[in-house]
Amino acid sequence: MKNKNKIKVGKRVYLDHAAATPMDPRVFEAMEPFWVKNFGNAGGLYEEGRIAKEAVQKSREAIARLIFAKPEEIIFTSGGTEADNLAIFGTANFFKKGHIITSKFEHHAVLNPCLELEKRGFDVTYLEVGSEGIVNPEDFKKALRADTVLVSIMYANNEIGTIQPIAEIGKIIQNYRLQSANSRLIFHTDACQAAAYLDMNVNELGVDLMTVNGGKIYGPKGAGFLYKKSGVKITPMIFGGGQEMRMRSGTESAPLIVGMAKAFEIAALEREKESARLCELRDYFISELFQKITKIVLNGHDKKRLPNNVNVSILDIEGEALILFMDAHGVSFSTGSACTSESLDPSHVILALGKPYEFAHSSMRFTLGRSTNKEDLDYVLSELPKTVAWLRRVSPLELDPNAASMSHPEAFAGENLRVKAKSKSYK
Amino acid sequence: MKNKNKIKVGKRVYLDHAAATPMDPRVFEAMEPFWVKNFGNAGGLYEEGRIAKEAVQKSREAIARLIFAKPEEIIFTSGGTEADNLAIFGTANFFKKGHIITSKFEHHAVLNPCLELEKRGFDVTYLEVGSEGIVNPEDFKKALRADTVLVSIMYANNEIGTIQPIAEIGKIIQNYRLQSANSRLIFHTDACQAAAYLDMNVNELGVDLMTVNGGKIYGPKGAGFLYKKSGVKITPMIFGGGQEMRMRSGTESAPLIVGMAKAFEIAALEREKESARLCELRDYFISELFQKITKIVLNGHDKKRLPNNVNVSILDIEGEALILFMDAHGVSFSTGSACTSESLDPSHVILALGKPYEFAHSSMRFTLGRSTNKEDLDYVLSELPKTVAWLRRVSPLELDPNAASMSHPEAFAGENLRVKAKSKSYK
Repeated sequence: MKNKNKIKVGKRVYLDHAAATPMDPRVFEAMEPFWVKNFGNAGGLYEEGRIAKEAVQKSREAIARLIFAKPEEIIFTSGGTEADNLAIFGTANFFKKGHIITSKFEHHAVLNPCLELEKRGFDVTYLEVGSEGIVNPEDFKKALRADTVLVSIMYANNEIGTIQPIAEIGKIIQNYRLQSANSRLIFHTDACQAAAYLDMNVNELGVDLMTVNGGKIYGPKGAGFLYKKSGVKITPMIFGGGQEMRMRSGTESAPLIVGMAKAFEIAALEREKESARLCELRDYFISELFQKITKIVLNGHDKKRLPNNVNVSILDIEGEALILFMDAHGVSFSTGSACTSESLDPSHVILALGKPYEFAHSSMRFTLGRSTNKEDLDYVLSELPKTVAWLRRVSPLELDPNAASMSHPEAFAGENLRVKAKSKSYK
Repeated sequence: MKNKNKIKVGKRVYLDHAAATPMDPRVFEAMEPFWVKNFGNAGGLYEEGRIAKEAVQKSREAIARLIFAKPEEIIFTSGGTEADNLAIFGTANFFKKGHIITSKFEHHAVLNPCLELEKRGFDVTYLEVGSEGIVNPEDFKKALRADTVLVSIMYANNEIGTIQPIAEIGKIIQNYRLQSANSRLIFHTDACQAAAYLDMNVNELGVDLMTVNGGKIYGPKGAGFLYKKSGVKITPMIFGGGQEMRMRSGTESAPLIVGMAKAFEIAALEREKESARLCELRDYFISELFQKITKIVLNGHDKKRLPNNVNVSILDIEGEALILFMDAHGVSFSTGSACTSESLDPSHVILALGKPYEFAHSSMRFTLGRSTNKEDLDYVLSELPKTVAWLRRVSPLELDPNAASMSHPEAFAGENLRVKAKSKSYK
């Protein structure tokens, strides 16, 4: 086995598109002139400045058109995390106090600002997401309060891909605004994972704020935007020259903005066809996995999930070990979300489903993408079961896939697992 | 005259390098592989992730080495404005209250956060900068208080290029910490304009926090970093996955970070030679301007200024008009700073020198760069005096270059000037 792992596989099968997407060459091409040649500051009154300004404006218009918004409602940011933070701190700083509703399994870019706001005196409700990973609109309705200032529910979960009923929640909020004394309440959704696959019409969704990230949709890492509905008031987070309608200061990066828009345009254009293609591949992959591997559990609703997301707990193995062995076989995927997979803390998303710690530790996320084809998946399906079998032979664990509670929580603390992994020289 | 302005000049002479620099092709080349090919998320445990992580780490080390810091002291951000905001709000949010010292002519990325902090209960001292645009260390010493938590003084001014006595202020702070009960006080400098030309050794400067911007040093727009000395505690501004030593969350943009480091390396390598070359060109340009144009005033100290900065007030003309006419002649430069030149408000920097409003409105910033040569400047020197002479013939103004106070303040309010400019169809 040891020798086998040293075999260098020429081709790689990359199945972590929820963590990062390769830039589409068309995006690269669109950005390219704005680095060296058309490098002007969009604030300059002269030709170089005007070229940059026009590129930024056209990008803003292109995105606005695709989400049925106005150009001035698009605030370019450095990515999804900043856009989420701007939405949450921006609303909180504007209202100064109040109640926030979010869900237990939001991305850390939403959860951690909420935790910080709790320290600053805000009251936060973290909605349960049920065993299938979907917020229940009835639960949501019950959580609304007269002092609720912000609702932040993700459009699709980044780990298990479950799609949240955003339009339905939007309608509940609309009614609540009319029927209650609280008409100021702001609705935000993190649409980073959804942007490539789901309907992005902000009017249909009924959102006031929406986050999109370039790096997750084959665009540039370091670019994103926050849609902010006209009339919705939030306090900026970054102050300075007053760019982006005074909502986000800092010299506009024309190349990143142009790349963001181009990536979003391509995603919109190919959304339908690519979603259908990936759904088919996804369902094939899931059904084969279940045939080839025992003691495997699908995390999240089987249909109401992103076309590219497969998340399973493969019991009796250590997630990190499987990733490292499969990496040696040329296959990339992740355990937990990439953003925190280094920490080895069990995934808060899998725990939110009510699963035991062991299930969280052995959860694997495979996220397909534009380059993924059946051949790639067949390769994974041939290698993965062998590696799983080998890891299970050396594993001390034997779990019940129907277990409702954790057996030995102390064995699964991050640091312990790290030590164990080291002692087996998995690294 | 009207026909003349329509003449398209093939070559352009770009003299607004303080607003934006073209990306160095070596930087473009260094970044290129990290967009499409090595696109991994640095948080991923597999090969694609490790490649990105290593690139980020090497970039961090390269920058750290060049400023005599440790790699973990480099926090990558989306640019100078974000780094300034992180330094200022980060310190303020950590201390929660206290006194801040800054100068009257900081960049808006420092001034506007300070104004915001005043609203939140902080006390801010804005130091005078004298007629030559340099903070007096004695004034600074007097401003220090037992409750001072933050000092933020720029290394070199973005409009007039004057170099501030950062090392001297650093020593005063060091002594103050030892001699007073206030040892917690944090020293920040915005080094965005200085980075390409001045000594960047953080130990010599005695700073705790230092801002650098990629887009001003021939690197990528949308990239920057904040140096944060080990042990200095600030509160993050953007919360999420915990990237950048938990100080700045968001997926690392490996291409931008690699580009930032490459640009900084090139700047360090060429700093001495390029500074000497530009000083010579700068002094030539200033002396010729004074020979060819009457009623012209140099803004800022004549020697203690960046090698690439020429800032003059050319009296009896409207700055915006001169920029638009010279743009038609193929020459780019700015009035005020590019970041706010759209607003037509008089430059706060020129006003801080104690000059009348009229001087601020007619201030012109020419900032030289790597591509600038004597031929370029000679072209400007041949075209500029003619345009100035023509504009003066149609100008209603006749100012005294030695005037100490404003003649008709109402005539120089931004909106009025805009209306005037329009009525003359300058746009």
